[in-house]
This record gives sequence, structure tokens and C-alpha cells, in this order.
Amino acid sequence: AVASPAIAQSAPEVRWRCTSSFPKSLDTIFGAAEDFARAVSDMTDGKFQIHVFASNEIVPGLQALDAVQAGTVEMCHTASYYYVGKDPTFAFGSAIPFGLNARMINAWFLTGGGLDMLNEFYKKYNVTMLPGGNTGTQMGGWFRKEINSVQDLNGLKMRIAGIAGQILQRLGGVPQQIAGGDIYPALEKGTIDAAEWVGPYDDEKLGFARVAKYYYYPGWWEGCAALNFFINQAKFNELPKTYQAVVRTAALMANQQMQANYDTKNPGAIKRLVAGGAQLRAFPQDVMEACYKVSNQLYDEISAKNPEFKKVYEAVRTFRNDSYLWWQVAEYTFDNFMIRARARGG
Amino acid sequence: AVASPAIAQSAPEVRWRCTSSFPKSLDTIFGAAEDFARAVSDMTDGKFQIHVFASNEIVPGLQALDAVQAGTVEMCHTASYYYVGKDPTFAFGSAIPFGLNARMINAWFLTGGGLDMLNEFYKKYNVTMLPGGNTGTQMGGWFRKEINSVQDLNGLKMRIAGIAGQILQRLGGVPQQIAGGDIYPALEKGTIDAAEWVGPYDDEKLGFARVAKYYYYPGWWEGCAALNFFINQAKFNELPKTYQAVVRTAALMANQQMQANYDTKNPGAIKRLVAGGAQLRAFPQDVMEACYKVSNQLYDEISAKNPEFKKVYEAVRTFRNDSYLWWQVAEYTFDNFMIRARARGG
Repeated sequence: AVASPAIAQSAPEVRWRCTSSFPKSLDTIFGAAEDFARAVSDMTDGKFQIHVFASNEIVPGLQALDAVQAGTVEMCHTASYYYVGKDPTFAFGSAIPFGLNARMINAWFLTGGGLDMLNEFYKKYNVTMLPGGNTGTQMGGWFRKEINSVQDLNGLKMRIAGIAGQILQRLGGVPQQIAGGDIYPALEKGTIDAAEWVGPYDDEKLGFARVAKYYYYPGWWEGCAALNFFINQAKFNELPKTYQAVVRTAALMANQQMQANYDTKNPGAIKRLVAGGAQLRAFPQDVMEACYKVSNQLYDEISAKNPEFKKVYEAVRTFRNDSYLWWQVAEYTFDNFMIRARARGG
Repeated sequence: AVASPAIAQSAPEVRWRCTSSFPKSLDTIFGAAEDFARAVSDMTDGKFQIHVFASNEIVPGLQALDAVQAGTVEMCHTASYYYVGKDPTFAFGSAIPFGLNARMINAWFLTGGGLDMLNEFYKKYNVTMLPGGNTGTQMGGWFRKEINSVQDLNGLKMRIAGIAGQILQRLGGVPQQIAGGDIYPALEKGTIDAAEWVGPYDDEKLGFARVAKYYYYPGWWEGCAALNFFINQAKFNELPKTYQAVVRTAALMANQQMQANYDTKNPGAIKRLVAGGAQLRAFPQDVMEACYKVSNQLYDEISAKNPEFKKVYEAVRTFRNDSYLWWQVAEYTFDNFMIRARARGG
């Protein structure tokens, strides 16, 4: 009994709320927050409970970060790039067009200095960030008409957000902000010409193939999309060190689990989509080149007026270029061989 | 004080030993076991301590699994494919030639049913397995002479182990088993013509470029190499549920951390190796094709006499083929564009 006060202190009962930016129907993304919360509970003998709320249960999805910053909830599960309106530097926590692929962003976060650099930036929002999953390279979305050259982007009304929307706009496109549930009717009526969502597994559920049959790849604006846990800094600091370690470790588990989930579920979904009539199309090379060029121009312009963006951008660009120098040697060559072998019926 | 016995029971003092198959000098691999042990300690307020021992401190590196099976130590950090001599089914826990890449093997383990299937097999060795890191696609190794066609494999004395060695042998090569520290002098004297090790970061430390300048890729026998934690089943069962969750979650953290470490360190190493005179060479297409064909023959032969191998092989092959069907669409196309953009000075 002598030791019990110390034990009680190191393992207090804690109840947190985590607001997700996602609906439960996006089960792979939403599920990562549930995986995280379950692990935290399991590792603390049920003493540290985190209740995950879907988008709109506490606050709307895109106000998740604000709720954490204000201390309304202790944490949220969201995508950093939803907040580029506050500061474009938020993009780097999730994805910038022509940025890192999934393995690279995890490497940059965990051992390349990325997480420390971003958390320095997030400080002024009273939050600290942990990786919270990844989708891998996303698809470029659903198009009612084929895109045969960069000229076809002119006047194209597309549901696409953030920095990618700005890039499309510079090439004559008309980016639109439309919530997930409203995309299908807009595509069906022709109010919009195209829409990007996530990838085969999530896209299949919304049935886009029925109203926009050309399914383009790759989503050059999301070579990967990292999800994030943002935790109110003061609430995190109040936790015993033991619970802080539990939170950090559980986040990395969930980070990996979401990617595994997508990688397991996407292959079946793309097969079903193609069997159901979706026409796979690669973006033409001139479209890719034009978008790449405009992206670089945009990054230079933002960097000229935003020193924090500039600092992180230069770190990401260097990390990306070094990473691809190596990636092309062993990893890419192996994948290349395996893809050809499979196509021949291997 | 009433609650203290229950608290004490749920958080007992536990001391485990983890024997690693690796020397401390392989800091990226060895370090993953240390990361794991540190997280376990941090998450249990220091109550669950796991001491990691380098290869040969308790048992030789290749006897790690036996030590866990016998209960000499509670767990080990090793590579499952070191034990193909017991049963070739052990290969699937780490790598088979022309198998899964790193993201795919994690997906297969975590959500594709792989871990459950393998743990069913490992049961008869009294162990349970958790993922313990990954190297990504390895390099094909160091060659004193260029390999211009499959004929050049004839008579080639190469330090290469396991199933890959058997494949080389069927193509006229002479596989050799040589410990890490003995490779350099063997290559220098010409006792062997080639040697494979890991990838740029680890290879650089051994200085192979000075005695065998052709550095081949990809290591088709290791599209990725997963490392593994094997835990004595009885010892795992004795742990409180809370500690079991801690062990599982910490393993997944370490699994990801090792990959991040390699992905961050390899780019600098390959630049330095090339600057120092290493000549990068891709294996000729006919070499890749011949090795692939022989691998498939070998898998069919083993499957014909080993039902457990057959069952796992068929699961891995299906998962791999489905995975590459999807991989080639978004992920590979994105990487392809980024590699070309970087090469043009992007």
C-alpha cells in the first residue's frame, strides 16, 4: 500500500475527446482515429479513454483544428492542408502538389527533421502534431470528358481544393469547393466537369463512375496525403510522461495501420470500378509538366512573402530530390520489373 | 489503498531479454530493437524493461529464434528468412525473391491476413511474431566484374544466402555463406566474385566499393526485407493484457521507425558511394527474367512437397499481383514523373 499514491499519480483516469474531420462512412480514414484511441485505452488498462467524434458531432470537419487550438476538445484527427487558408505552411503536414510519396513523408517526419520543423510552426496555434495515417498516392479524379492536352483544362470546372485548386486556376480551370455528399449530383447535372476525392476504395462508395467515366491518375497534388493528430499543447503537457509516450506510440501505430488498410482495400476496388465501366486514363505528359511548372512558380511566389513557408518548402524539396535520387535505383526498378511481370501473367 | 493490489497486478515489474541477430554496428537494424524497448519502458513508467543484446552476447545471431523457442530468452529481433533451413515457409516473414515491396508486406501483415497466417505457422516453434522493421528494396550487391547477360552468372562465386542462393545456383552460380566481417577480404582476394549485403547506408561502412566497384540493382531477392520480433508464446501469454498491447504497439512503431531511418540515410550514402567510385549498374533484363522464371519453378517445387509453404505462397502471390495491379496506376506513375522531373533538375 505504500507505493499506491505514486502508482495512482502515474496512471490517472483521463478522458479526452478527439474530433475527426471525417464522417464514419470514410471508414479507412475515420477508423485510424478509432485504432489510435483503442490502443491508448488498451495500453493504459482503460484508464486513458479517448472518445472519437465524427465530423459535425461536436464541430464541423474543417473547424477541428480551431476546436483544439481553443481547447474545446483535447485533440482532433484531420488533414493539415485543410488549414492553408490560415497559412499555406499548413500544407506540408499533409501534402503539397508534386511533394513526397508516403514512405518519404514518413521518413521526413520521423528521422528527417520534418516533425520537429512543423511542430515549431504549429506552436503558435497551441497544438502539437503527430502523424495520423496516409492514403498513398491518390487518384486524379473523375472526368466527364477526356483530357487530351493542357488546353482541355481551360474552363474546366473541377471540385478540387487548396493549393491544387490554385494551380488548376492558373491553367484556366475553375476550382470548386463542394462537400463530399454534393459531388455526385453536381457531376450528374454537369454543374461541374470533374471531381477529385481520394482513391478507388473511397471513390467507389460514392458511385462517381456512373456519371463521369474517365478516371484519371495520378493525383499529382497528392503523391501521398498524410493525415494528422493535432493535440492541444497545454493538454498534452498536463499528461504524465507515460501517457505522452502512449499517445506518441499509438499515433505511429495508427499511421501505419491506415496505409495498410488502403493498400489492402484499393486493389479490389479498382478492379471492381474498371469492371463496372470506369475508363482509366493517365494525365497527358504536357498536363503533368504544366502543372509541375506552375506549382514551382507558386511555391516561389509564396516563399518570397512567407519565410516560414520558404523554410519548410526548401527542406521538403531537398528531402524529396534526395529521396527520389535513391528511390529510382532499387525501389523503382524493382517495382518496374514486378509490374511488367504481372502484366505478362506472372 | 483498497485498489492497490489490482493496480500492482496490472502493472507488475517485468524484465525481459531480447537477443538481436545483429551487431550494434548495423545501427539502423539494431536500433529498431532499442527503439522498441525504449517505447515499452516509456509507456509502462519503467516497469516493463527489455534489455537488448547484440548478436553473440547471449547466443550467435542465427540462433536467436532457437533461444526464444527454448525460452532461454523471452524474445529476439531477427529476420525470419534466416531460418529457411528449418522450413522454407520461414521466408515469407521477411522476403522471398520477387515478393512484396515494403508497403505491400506491411499491408499483408496488418490487414491482409498475413500476420495471422504466419503466426499459425510459427506456433509449432512456440513463438509469435510481430513486424520489426524493414529495409525497403535492397541493392543487388557488389561485383568485381560486370554482368552483361545471364551467362555471366555461370561460375560466379557470390556471397548470397537462402532461397536467393538456390536460385543463383540453378543458373550456374556458386552461392557462398560468409559472415559480414569476412566479406571484404574475400572480395579483395577474389575468393568470391560478388557479395550482397543490404543497401547504401550499411554497405558504405564495409567499404566494398574499394574492392568490387560494380554496384548492381535491384536486389530482386529482397523487394523488401522485413525484420521480425519473435516472442516466446508462453512468456507473451503470461503478460497482463495491458503489456501485451504495449508490446504490439511498440513493435509497429519500431517497424515504421526503421524504414524511416533507412529512407533518410540511404540517399546520402548512395551519393557518397558514387562520388567515391562505385559504378551503378542495373541487372540486365535477361538476368532478371531468368531469375524470375527459376524462382517461380522453385516455389512450385517446394509447394508440391510442403503444404504450409504452398498455402502461404499462394496468399502472398495473390496479394502481390493484386497490389501491383493497383500500384502501377497511381503510385508508380507519380514516382515515375517525379524521378524524371528531378533528373531534369527540378
